[in-house]
Amino acid sequence: MAVETYSIKLETKGDADIQDITEAVGAVLYESKFSNGIVTIFCPSATSALTTIEFESGCISDLRRLFDEIIDPNRHYDHNARWGDGNGHSHVRAALMGPSFTVPFIENRLTLGTWQQIIYLDFDNRPRRRELVVQIMGE
Amino acid sequence: MAVETYSIKLETKGDADIQDITEAVGAVLYESKFSNGIVTIFCPSATSALTTIEFESGCISDLRRLFDEIIDPNRHYDHNARWGDGNGHSHVRAALMGPSFTVPFIENRLTLGTWQQIIYLDFDNRPRRRELVVQIMGE
Amino acid sequence: MAVETYSIKLETKGDADIQDITEAVGAVLYESKFSNGIVTIFCPSATSALTTIEFESGCISDLRRLFDEIIDPNRHYDHNARWGDGNGHSHVRAALMGPSFTVPFIENRLTLGTWQQIIYLDFDNRPRRRELVVQIMGE
Repeated sequence: MAVETYSIKLETKGDADIQDITEAVGAVLYESKFSNGIVTIFCPSATSALTTIEFESGCISDLRRLFDEIIDPNRHYDHNARWGDGNGHSHVRAALMGPSFTVPFIENRLTLGTWQQIIYLDFDNRPRRRELVVQIMGE
Repeated sequence: MAVETYSIKLETKGDADIQDITEAVGAVLYESKFSNGIVTIFCPSATSALTTIEFESGCISDLRRLFDEIIDPNRHYDHNARWGDGNGHSHVRAALMGPSFTVPFIENRLTLGTWQQIIYLDFDNRPRRRELVVQIMGE
Repeated sequence: MAVETYSIKLETKGDADIQDITEAVGAVLYESKFSNGIVTIFCPSATSALTTIEFESGCISDLRRLFDEIIDPNRHYDHNARWGDGNGHSHVRAALMGPSFTVPFIENRLTLGTWQQIIYLDFDNRPRRRELVVQIMGE
């Protein structure tokens, strides 16, 4: 049993930019030589999140609409009133979705479903450079 | 320290079928002989999810109503327009709730609260046979 | 590689009381002497949850408003009709947000972002004494 920590660097466009990071995570796992265990992916950020979805334009568009409906950027946010940075909705969306994602792997392969991809959601209201923590634990 | 991977098989009815998998997870843990560590449960699927709730009919009904309200099946989804399979809402619900659940155990017992059960939520729009990954890591 | 289990005790006010537990988690990690690995925090409760946010009053207020809007306490809940305890909304909120949170650490430090704090959300409708499970696994 061992633990190793890697990272994935991303450039995002902001405004609920959703990126498929499955290949990047799989590549880190492949290089690591671990056989069985878990990968924990973590966003060290208060305005972005992780989950899985079938990464096709319809699902992505439908998910973005959910955020616009239940956490509408075009309304009052106390965060914006205090800090004037206009990303109050980004903080609420990120808190709802969560910054941490754990997936088991078996024989060096992620146990994802056929149509299931790991996505990074950047809710901030401007382009960002991001670095995700990818930690692998197992044997 | 070691890692072992098991599975749980389920038959679901679809349409936000919610099943209590606490006993099944506890039975896997009991057989595993691990003392302390974490159980990671993972749905290799883009239309289902995991969380906890007090598993009684009132809570289940109230949770299902939330999904009907914020991710209504009876409206337009871009996913459905592209693929015609009618489960666009299932994808959005699954992405919101997340496919991964981690719970610590101590002395071979899950650290769940008295009224807290682990649930599997199948959002797909038809009955499915599912196989969840249950990975145990610890000593 | 080893696993150790700790706890954090909290007194909460209920009604979506949101508390910053980052320092408490960091203190447990510091005492543990682990270098690299993951911390899993778990609420053994069906009416509370964990996530991260920038812990400032604007964000907290904005997040609480989301819960009031999509899971309004002032309406019918089947749970309340059955049990009469008035916390049906608390159960639905907790199920949505989830009771488990995993964060990697490197060189004995949590990999949180600068403006990102770990929060405990007590959705119950009365003050509670809570004890969270904090399990550390790594080397």
